[in-house]
Amino acid sequence: MVVALIEPLPADPFAVMNTVGLVAFALVGSTKAIREEFDVFGIAVVGLVTAFAGGVTRDLLVDRVPLALTSFGEIGLGILGVALAIGLHSALESPDGHPITLLSDAVGLAAFATAGAIVATEAGVSSFGVVAIATINAVGGGAVADILLDRAPFILFDDFYASCAVAGGSVYVIVGGIGGMESTAAAVCAAVTVGTRLTAVTYGWSLPAAQMLGFVRDEPRDSQ
Amino acid sequence: MVVALIEPLPADPFAVMNTVGLVAFALVGSTKAIREEFDVFGIAVVGLVTAFAGGVTRDLLVDRVPLALTSFGEIGLGILGVALAIGLHSALESPDGHPITLLSDAVGLAAFATAGAIVATEAGVSSFGVVAIATINAVGGGAVADILLDRAPFILFDDFYASCAVAGGSVYVIVGGIGGMESTAAAVCAAVTVGTRLTAVTYGWSLPAAQMLGFVRDEPRDSQ
Amino acid sequence: MVVALIEPLPADPFAVMNTVGLVAFALVGSTKAIREEFDVFGIAVVGLVTAFAGGVTRDLLVDRVPLALTSFGEIGLGILGVALAIGLHSALESPDGHPITLLSDAVGLAAFATAGAIVATEAGVSSFGVVAIATINAVGGGAVADILLDRAPFILFDDFYASCAVAGGSVYVIVGGIGGMESTAAAVCAAVTVGTRLTAVTYGWSLPAAQMLGFVRDEPRDSQ
Repeated sequence: MVVALIEPLPADPFAVMNTVGLVAFALVGSTKAIREEFDVFGIAVVGLVTAFAGGVTRDLLVDRVPLALTSFGEIGLGILGVALAIGLHSALESPDGHPITLLSDAVGLAAFATAGAIVATEAGVSSFGVVAIATINAVGGGAVADILLDRAPFILFDDFYASCAVAGGSVYVIVGGIGGMESTAAAVCAAVTVGTRLTAVTYGWSLPAAQMLGFVRDEPRDSQ
Repeated sequence: MVVALIEPLPADPFAVMNTVGLVAFALVGSTKAIREEFDVFGIAVVGLVTAFAGGVTRDLLVDRVPLALTSFGEIGLGILGVALAIGLHSALESPDGHPITLLSDAVGLAAFATAGAIVATEAGVSSFGVVAIATINAVGGGAVADILLDRAPFILFDDFYASCAVAGGSVYVIVGGIGGMESTAAAVCAAVTVGTRLTAVTYGWSLPAAQMLGFVRDEPRDSQ
Repeated sequence: MVVALIEPLPADPFAVMNTVGLVAFALVGSTKAIREEFDVFGIAVVGLVTAFAGGVTRDLLVDRVPLALTSFGEIGLGILGVALAIGLHSALESPDGHPITLLSDAVGLAAFATAGAIVATEAGVSSFGVVAIATINAVGGGAVADILLDRAPFILFDDFYASCAVAGGSVYVIVGGIGGMESTAAAVCAAVTVGTRLTAVTYGWSLPAAQMLGFVRDEPRDSQ
């Protein structure tokens, strides 16, 4: 019984990460739709798409029927996140850039990167495949939501968003490769992803554009 | 022989619904492309995408090779719908909002919701999964066509479009749950979907936006 | 040894076509992102999406785990194409319409149409399915890249882009149907696709719009 008390979460790392990710991303997606002044149906659709698109894509890639379609619990968690967003919105002035929204997004990113790495490893894809599926699980929901809202996915413009999931997935592969347990790899993956993401947001990190690297010669070269 | 005469359609509800949906949605999609002044190739592409995207997504979700790729009849039905759209356009002044187009869209929505519910039930997904796949089968084609045309999918803004398919899929699950035959569930699903859709179009139904529910406080509050 | 020298490529037509297509399309996609002034991460993402989206969609349609996720070589070829684009850009003034870019695009289109036809034939889909998968493999990457960049896919507006892949895939089916070997069908498919594409670019081919066919009556008809 003591054992059961001190290790309740590691029992199934995937279930923990998936639960956290679904609620967090449904909240983030719904907040975005509220800001766009969508109606209740639109808020629910954008929230649920943000929550589920990454995991459904992950499941399609490893060639299985999406978990979201075979489990009742999943949709309930998504609806909980939508309800939280509506509740938070009535309590806060500008929730879109609110610390709760930014934190939820970072936590969801980390949780889904980890869930994706676990599923991909169990499916037996290559190391690159594990990193790719971790990243797709993490960023797929936000990207599909942006496409539905008819704008270019922000993941293409925010350098340290997808990159954080790539870092987390890579660490998961490394920890697993040196013999670490699944629960250890999951904890390290989630910590690296959420840590790099929150640090990047706090310090405004970005990568150099090609122009800054001197690759482009569009400028008039009268100085030569 | 009498038996063959009195029950020709219920023999395979999926085949009936799929046939009706393919022709109707190819017609609707092609009409949209004609209005955008696309050339013949573009008209055919948008019409066929509208007809096939929902069913292909459905088949991917239940983990099978899309029917559209294994059957010759499917593409023929899609081309028939494209040809009908071109023919109608030369006969009518403004076919985009024409009763025939609106009716085709409602009939296609109902037919594909029913086809999706049948396939999902046979694949053994959860009740939520049946409703989700029915809805995706019904609205996927229009959503993908809108994304190709670089605009936000209209299904996000028209409250009683996807909702009608959700209602139809839910009724399918209920009729099946209380022991109804597949053909009965299919007939009721199609009737509920097309009925709610046509009623919504006729009376201009819409859901309240979040703002109307008092969730948003963007307005200046000097009146307080 | 002489045999090894005179037939090194036909040994595995799929591997040859896939290799050529990945490098060529990663180069074309990255060039597009450089022109949009994306940063290094964005350039890599758009290049890799252009290279992989078609093949991943192909693999999902024939119901197998995408090759890109199970093979290390694939991602290496994509990165090679991205690096080539960055290298070329620093060496050329306006690479977007440069003959090297146009040629790479035509070669990638032909290579992926052929790779798609080979995979589809081995998966046992219908003749229409072979042509459809060849076309999706060939144009999918460019279409998804355009959607990510928030614009309507150019394949809808350039009549002789997807059409060239349709022609190549059709020829593949015909050559296979009359008893030709896989390597022969692959060579003819690639030649027809790249040939029609380069000819269309050179001579500016386009199909008539519906308006030119007399289908539309939007103009005032005061002349009647």
